Amino acid sequence: MKGLIGVLGGMGPAATVDMFNKFVTFTAAGSDQEHIPLIISSIPDIPDRTTALMHGGTSPLPTMTDYMKRLEKAGAECIVIPCNTAHYWFSELKEASDVDMLSIVETTMDEVVASGKRRIGLLATNATMYMGLYQNSIEARGLECISPTEESQQRVMESIYALKAGELPRATQMMVEQAEALFDRGAEIIVLGCTEVPVILADAVLQNPEKYVDSTGALVRAGIRWYEKRMGKNHLLVE
Amino acid sequence: MKGLIGVLGGMGPAATVDMFNKFVTFTAAGSDQEHIPLIISSIPDIPDRTTALMHGGTSPLPTMTDYMKRLEKAGAECIVIPCNTAHYWFSELKEASDVDMLSIVETTMDEVVASGKRRIGLLATNATMYMGLYQNSIEARGLECISPTEESQQRVMESIYALKAGELPRATQMMVEQAEALFDRGAEIIVLGCTEVPVILADAVLQNPEKYVDSTGALVRAGIRWYEKRMGKNHLLVE
Repeated sequence: MKGLIGVLGGMGPAATVDMFNKFVTFTAAGSDQEHIPLIISSIPDIPDRTTALMHGGTSPLPTMTDYMKRLEKAGAECIVIPCNTAHYWFSELKEASDVDMLSIVETTMDEVVASGKRRIGLLATNATMYMGLYQNSIEARGLECISPTEESQQRVMESIYALKAGELPRATQMMVEQAEALFDRGAEIIVLGCTEVPVILADAVLQNPEKYVDSTGALVRAGIRWYEKRMGKNHLLVE
Repeated sequence: MKGLIGVLGGMGPAATVDMFNKFVTFTAAGSDQEHIPLIISSIPDIPDRTTALMHGGTSPLPTMTDYMKRLEKAGAECIVIPCNTAHYWFSELKEASDVDMLSIVETTMDEVVASGKRRIGLLATNATMYMGLYQNSIEARGLECISPTEESQQRVMESIYALKAGELPRATQMMVEQAEALFDRGAEIIVLGCTEVPVILADAVLQNPEKYVDSTGALVRAGIRWYEKRMGKNHLLVE
């Protein structure tokens, strides 16, 4: 038992790099050996989650389950998934898993509530929007969810696929406009509810961290706290 | 058979993030599914390589072998190790492995030779220097190896451990000076022969890529070419 965390990634690869980087930079470690042990699957042939949910494409569940079980066989004691849309299948994956799992939606909502803000903007994939993955949780807590207009949502999706195609500058230009539109409509804080979005908006988040809830960051912080508890350690999280 | 590449990392974690990021950004992919499949071990409790070689510390070989075999069990068909010093044990690891392995020293030396330069500077750990991991290869090809002076080498090592402790700005300040000293002594090009160094000198390399041979980058390019050959694909490497 060494508190090994398994990252079921590749959805997409750049978002998985971002999660790995946050595990390393959010951990207060004085040497290699003090870092959180991770095993990361970035096998990206998992069928597209949005296509499956919105356009009747192949379900990604069997492939995700296969790669999750490989992580468990390699020794993972806790599974995290740096993809919000994939959390549509979270309960089925949890059913198939023999180890702990942390939900990106739950860990992100914990940070939304802790922010004390009441008007919550949301940037996410069409499928995450359609499923109401965040809207339901936000409204269940008596908060207001401000989603992009239909036209704006199309641009959000275009930006996400642009990043997946390696076109970061084009993705950023498009996404910044959609974030500004949410602030203009009264959002006090914006949930980055797709793990590509913190990569796309990295500079904006760096400049105004208090204006965003980064779902990848929230899941990483929860992962580090899981490790602290499991291993009886403290003060591993950079404040 | 899907051409899964196993990354035996955690030596250190930040260098492993850098390799993962390079696999993603060096691949010409239009969607998630076109990226190189990776499984990455970043379990950093592997005993320090320099301490083992220079100060009689615990050998990292048994732990490295264990983590490499886990990657193979998870389906890896090729192993890469983003740590130069660990390549002291490369032949023993290769002996224990049942799949392909790519050597960071060989792939880096291929790029040194391709550069056509003759006066080769070298930034690496004390142990990599002491073993002559690069000096021997450089001199065997009739090229001149310019290593840091003893005092400068101490600063190189201090810089590497500073990065491992999360102190990037301090690490960069120290390493830039040692690189400049090598150029002043006539180096035409510098081998970044420790995988922490491309992280520490990221800005300098971005500004003058033709002045450096990045060992992490060389191994990633070789990994992408291995995948192309294995899977019968072409044009996956961003030029």
